[in-house]
Amino acid sequence: MSDAKKNKPATPDLASVPKAVVSRLSLYLRELQHLVFDGHETISSHRLGKLLGFSDAQVRKDLAYFGQFGHPGIGYRCPELIAAIRGILGTDAVWPVALVGVGNLGRALLGYKGFGAQGFQVQAAFDSDARKTGSTVEGVTVYHFDDLAKVVRQRGIRVGIVSVPADSAQTVADRLVEAGVEGIVNFAPVTISLPESVSLVGVDLAIELEQLAFSVVNRRQTR
Amino acid sequence: MSDAKKNKPATPDLASVPKAVVSRLSLYLRELQHLVFDGHETISSHRLGKLLGFSDAQVRKDLAYFGQFGHPGIGYRCPELIAAIRGILGTDAVWPVALVGVGNLGRALLGYKGFGAQGFQVQAAFDSDARKTGSTVEGVTVYHFDDLAKVVRQRGIRVGIVSVPADSAQTVADRLVEAGVEGIVNFAPVTISLPESVSLVGVDLAIELEQLAFSVVNRRQTR
Repeated sequence: MSDAKKNKPATPDLASVPKAVVSRLSLYLRELQHLVFDGHETISSHRLGKLLGFSDAQVRKDLAYFGQFGHPGIGYRCPELIAAIRGILGTDAVWPVALVGVGNLGRALLGYKGFGAQGFQVQAAFDSDARKTGSTVEGVTVYHFDDLAKVVRQRGIRVGIVSVPADSAQTVADRLVEAGVEGIVNFAPVTISLPESVSLVGVDLAIELEQLAFSVVNRRQTR
Repeated sequence: MSDAKKNKPATPDLASVPKAVVSRLSLYLRELQHLVFDGHETISSHRLGKLLGFSDAQVRKDLAYFGQFGHPGIGYRCPELIAAIRGILGTDAVWPVALVGVGNLGRALLGYKGFGAQGFQVQAAFDSDARKTGSTVEGVTVYHFDDLAKVVRQRGIRVGIVSVPADSAQTVADRLVEAGVEGIVNFAPVTISLPESVSLVGVDLAIELEQLAFSVVNRRQTR
């Protein structure tokens, strides 16, 4: 009981934790999973930071937002810290996911093994092209877009992945929200608007490249 | 000349601009491109912010890092602001890009139209599977991985996209760096290390979902 208390702050106001810190939690989790896979039981904040290019102070400060996880003279116990981070991120339970838009990117996402490893299970895919519906892509059944509300409700889908062209992204998002999803990952290169109650993450691949370009150009200009 | 001066601060220390601001520049750019496509010539900071879910103060503050772009009584001239932002991001010239790893994700990335629209031209793809080499995917020739250094140098490739499995990502990145690329976008779900002189953007799709999960869970806990 005192241990449980020690690992959780009294009032964890997680919604106010800086976004960058939550991002790094995912990086710590991934690195810890690699470490366990390679047979490591424990890790120091120094070594964990080094693997990721952060200082040990950064690692300790980030984790301190969520509790006290280190053990004196030992460091972090990898499986324990993995469980704690998954608990914080909410990925300690399976998240049923639906994907809308079975084009090239949709197919790639359906074949992406990383989702399953982190607790996201794509349980249904949707497309408006009747030639695709009824087929199975990477083990996932493709339903017609018209059946979205029914299937999402039946399967208790919580998250929708939008991988349709820009001009249909908002419509697809609206349908997903009506069907009751709690969060949307938008891969369409357009800004969509959602009700306050639904979380949104946008992944725009061109933006990632632009950010890289900026970094390349300014690295050179500052020398 | 006074106009040019007005649009550029005397010492634009762009490397120190917060990352989030540079991210939003990409969002402004995308929205402005949509506006021009729809026939709009000018836009107010209020309306631009509203389209993206930001306040007008936020828009003005972000752009103020880079210069003075608004015109009293007019707002922003869309084509002018697009040119300015592309200049800041460094995407006013074409960036020759190479992609390594022609699997599902690689194919999706080769078919992704958004890169070209933002100035990134995938000029070569590489794979270690000899059955793929010599073929053309989405108009891009697939070379054998062994020819990477030669082709990258010949074509003046500046950016490499890594879409190989996690266990070969570091090797691929090392080869790209040796061949002279200035930046790498890593889609493999692993942290890679690069020399200081090479820029890195990591896109981990599972991490995007984790961040969404955190946001969903904590939205609910805070109610």
